[in-house]
Amino acid sequence: MSDIVSPFSTIRSAQKPSGMPVERYRPFPPIDLPDRTWPSRTIEQAPRWLSTDLRDGNQALIDPMTPARKMRMFDLLVQMGYKEIEVGFPSASETDFSFVRQLIEGDRIPDDVTISVLTQAREDLIERSVQSLVGVPRANIHLYNALAPMFRRVVFGASRDEVKDIAVRGTEMVMKHGEQVLDMTVIGYEYSPEIFTSTELPFSLEVCEAVSDVWQPEDGREIILNLPATIEVSTPNVYADQIEWFSRQLTRRENTVISLHPHNDRGTAVAATELAMMAGADRVEGCLFGHGERTGNVCLVTLGMNLFSQGVDPMIDFAVEGGIDEIRRTVEYCTQLPVHPRHPYAGDLVYTAFSGSHQDAIKKGLEDLDRQAAEQGVPVGSLPWEAPYLPIDPKDVGRTYEAVIRVNSQSGKGGVAYVLKAEHKLDLPRRAQIEFSRVVQQRTDADGGEMTPEAIWDVFRSEYLDRESPLSLDSVHTSSAAGEKDALTVNVEVEGEMRTLEGTGNGPIAAFVGALNELPQEWDVRVLDYHEHALSSGGDALAAAYVECSVRDRIFWGVGVDANIVTASLKAVISAVNRA
Amino acid sequence: MSDIVSPFSTIRSAQKPSGMPVERYRPFPPIDLPDRTWPSRTIEQAPRWLSTDLRDGNQALIDPMTPARKMRMFDLLVQMGYKEIEVGFPSASETDFSFVRQLIEGDRIPDDVTISVLTQAREDLIERSVQSLVGVPRANIHLYNALAPMFRRVVFGASRDEVKDIAVRGTEMVMKHGEQVLDMTVIGYEYSPEIFTSTELPFSLEVCEAVSDVWQPEDGREIILNLPATIEVSTPNVYADQIEWFSRQLTRRENTVISLHPHNDRGTAVAATELAMMAGADRVEGCLFGHGERTGNVCLVTLGMNLFSQGVDPMIDFAVEGGIDEIRRTVEYCTQLPVHPRHPYAGDLVYTAFSGSHQDAIKKGLEDLDRQAAEQGVPVGSLPWEAPYLPIDPKDVGRTYEAVIRVNSQSGKGGVAYVLKAEHKLDLPRRAQIEFSRVVQQRTDADGGEMTPEAIWDVFRSEYLDRESPLSLDSVHTSSAAGEKDALTVNVEVEGEMRTLEGTGNGPIAAFVGALNELPQEWDVRVLDYHEHALSSGGDALAAAYVECSVRDRIFWGVGVDANIVTASLKAVISAVNRA
Repeated sequence: MSDIVSPFSTIRSAQKPSGMPVERYRPFPPIDLPDRTWPSRTIEQAPRWLSTDLRDGNQALIDPMTPARKMRMFDLLVQMGYKEIEVGFPSASETDFSFVRQLIEGDRIPDDVTISVLTQAREDLIERSVQSLVGVPRANIHLYNALAPMFRRVVFGASRDEVKDIAVRGTEMVMKHGEQVLDMTVIGYEYSPEIFTSTELPFSLEVCEAVSDVWQPEDGREIILNLPATIEVSTPNVYADQIEWFSRQLTRRENTVISLHPHNDRGTAVAATELAMMAGADRVEGCLFGHGERTGNVCLVTLGMNLFSQGVDPMIDFAVEGGIDEIRRTVEYCTQLPVHPRHPYAGDLVYTAFSGSHQDAIKKGLEDLDRQAAEQGVPVGSLPWEAPYLPIDPKDVGRTYEAVIRVNSQSGKGGVAYVLKAEHKLDLPRRAQIEFSRVVQQRTDADGGEMTPEAIWDVFRSEYLDRESPLSLDSVHTSSAAGEKDALTVNVEVEGEMRTLEGTGNGPIAAFVGALNELPQEWDVRVLDYHEHALSSGGDALAAAYVECSVRDRIFWGVGVDANIVTASLKAVISAVNRA
Repeated sequence: MSDIVSPFSTIRSAQKPSGMPVERYRPFPPIDLPDRTWPSRTIEQAPRWLSTDLRDGNQALIDPMTPARKMRMFDLLVQMGYKEIEVGFPSASETDFSFVRQLIEGDRIPDDVTISVLTQAREDLIERSVQSLVGVPRANIHLYNALAPMFRRVVFGASRDEVKDIAVRGTEMVMKHGEQVLDMTVIGYEYSPEIFTSTELPFSLEVCEAVSDVWQPEDGREIILNLPATIEVSTPNVYADQIEWFSRQLTRRENTVISLHPHNDRGTAVAATELAMMAGADRVEGCLFGHGERTGNVCLVTLGMNLFSQGVDPMIDFAVEGGIDEIRRTVEYCTQLPVHPRHPYAGDLVYTAFSGSHQDAIKKGLEDLDRQAAEQGVPVGSLPWEAPYLPIDPKDVGRTYEAVIRVNSQSGKGGVAYVLKAEHKLDLPRRAQIEFSRVVQQRTDADGGEMTPEAIWDVFRSEYLDRESPLSLDSVHTSSAAGEKDALTVNVEVEGEMRTLEGTGNGPIAAFVGALNELPQEWDVRVLDYHEHALSSGGDALAAAYVECSVRDRIFWGVGVDANIVTASLKAVISAVNRA
């Protein structure tokens, strides 16, 4: 090592050019706003929120919501406290049109909630959008058109004046059709200069002023100008600069609601929203857990909880319905997409400390809060929150101190499922995971101590695999031929007595359940779900079967493991019955 | 509606207090830095990167990496171009110690890569950390201790002077043991004042200066001061203010590397990092796809790709090994945690447009680029990238234009799997999804047109379910008893001729495969994997079986549907053979 001068020496960066085609991209030009004020501001109140879960969120799902899932989402948003909800794009989708009608005719919209619908600026589409709203006491109509240079040039082949004219005439048509058709409705108006972030700022302003000239906002008659970061194209400070510039230049500012609609292409939507709020925005559009086109809209949960963690009331209840986990499950059900385990405030892992020193610090912090509460004679929940590594008290959103509990007991559903999969190749169906994690939780709650993987496996075996009473299986004979019902003969011990059960059915499980239900015990077994998989490669490998059964109207999972897939599944049925 | 004055009226916010315990939280106090310069700056070069995937990332996994997965991660990081890699916490973990030894003794560290190890400031731990490095040509030793007020008071019961003394003595011990033990190693030094974000700024500075007094940085002998946002506690601009303040006050700035280590508790780690880079930081620590304690460390992929999208070379190759999807799969394998479908640049959905108008605009944008390229007589890849709704060219990271392809053909694995699941309840195992999506892709490539869900189902049926030659199943009889091999009799048509096959094995699949392999056709069938599930509730419901077979050494999935679970699985084996 001839280049060593002293043992302590500089390790300079050895980074090399990546070889990626960097030359194809250009930096976003900064905004000239040296006297910007937002960096010295803080956020002192919640913005007005609009949830676009049912519009931007829904349109970007692999599996768009069914009417039932839409209604569940709408009810959740109302329960949480959202007062402005974009419910669809009725001129573009019959499903959306019907859903708006269902909301209105079914009287599902509370008095203090305003729905809105999105429309493009064509007269037939505006007319159709207005039609969808007949009979609603109040609604916002949200019109957009694209102003950005690339869209003018490539997508529409239109000049500045032409796209400006589209916005102006669209606004006039909203007023005309609204007046004609919606005589029982208080109509609000929202205009979005699309791809605001990529449009020349003075041109966006010019179009917005022209739209406002038509709408004529005044006291008691606001206009909402929504400035979308349709695609996130710069560091988040630039969006804040754009908003501050726009807000300063705009006339009729006091009767204008400046609204944000940030997307997350650069992973900085939450930050862009917060900085733009500091820069003067009044209102934020987003989705729960950040659904929406591509990388999604800004996450309303993170934004709201960020406010909460700073002592600012988000005006949204994130502990409604039993807590943030319940909100998450409902959204996962509606969107059929998962929330990531590291998603702020709501992910499975975000209150979990795996490092021993973190766990120790958290434990000391919680003990200190308990001691303070005892000294002051007050409930611990009334003390200012302060604990290492936990930015908020998980209990405030209905979570537990998994940081401590999890690692000691491995009792989380994920941890338990992981142990079974990693060490025993058992891939439990989701509902079976939930059932078993409750069993484990009961043991850890009772015993209070640490739960090792071995102990989890012991619990699993004794709960699902080793029960032999009242039923235990001896031998199985099946017969099936194309076009005929299957025949099954099973030798089984019932409450200690060997019996031969015979049944027919569409398969061995059906035949077995039929035969079981003939027994005097009247278990009334019904099979609700069934999964089976190999435990390893090879035709002679073991198989694991999971059967969800209703036994005398209570639900139990049963698990069976056997080289024979029929025997495994019958064992699983027996496991469920024995557990019941 | 007596309150309607005109049809167009203001819809004021009706938001109500949430009822959440907001009073328990306090706003983070702003930094007094009215002459901050970072808001007017832009990022013009990549920082020095440190990957802590193998340390902070690894310690926060449900399933920490095995040595093999660690080595895979290390090799990936090296291939991508990371030159500083924190490889573990050897004094806290025997596994980490062994891994560091394995790297050094196995000569796995390229000449231009510097590994680092983390240690607490206790002498025995420092000694052990130094021991782990014996024989390495260059390494950084990274020492930390907690300075924040809550940690002083609650966790350690230590005064300011006491925690400062821990840092100073720790630095002395690193130098002492480094000099004594690592005579062949160029040693670099990194110090982290832990929970920097929650510590009094002047006190962090005071401790860092004291540490530097010991280390004595000078030309050719840098010190790395790493200022962690261990917990994210404020809007991201505040971290930038903290970094600018610190950087201005610090002496020996020219020989100090100011490093960031942001976590993502508020969902703004990427932004905080970018603003802090504008505020003067030189170096960034993070993890691929944002692994790490709780909400994770800042995501190195998003940060790097953000630079790329602005025309700044990240000095990291995100197209290595076949592209960002391959990087993602490797990280998913190593961490056993998923990357979210909306994760910037890498998620399944981020280049996908579901909205018709978005698809149309993208199509026009791509056509425009093709036209420009043709007019100029240059390859399209040499043109500046500009297309609606796509912040970068997906091809630059090895992705395709799914935005267009996906929706027109539904040919993505996700789309195909979705159709089968949503419309036919078939839940294909992941590898079967991949196989079938290739089949669909071949059809769409051949036919060029749109592929409806009905057409996908037709392809699936003809590929997997409807083949009757060379094999087709007639009837099945099985018999099994505890402790004995299973017996199976199957009537089957083989190349048009009815035959009775008899076999024994650990289950019907094994028995059937055994009997098949006795046939003169010599298919040499082996079963590699097996899954089965009910298609609906009820014991007489249909079951779907999926069997992955090797047939004459080529791999095929087979699918069988039948009310009888045995028949379904034998049909699946036959499906695989018939496909072969």
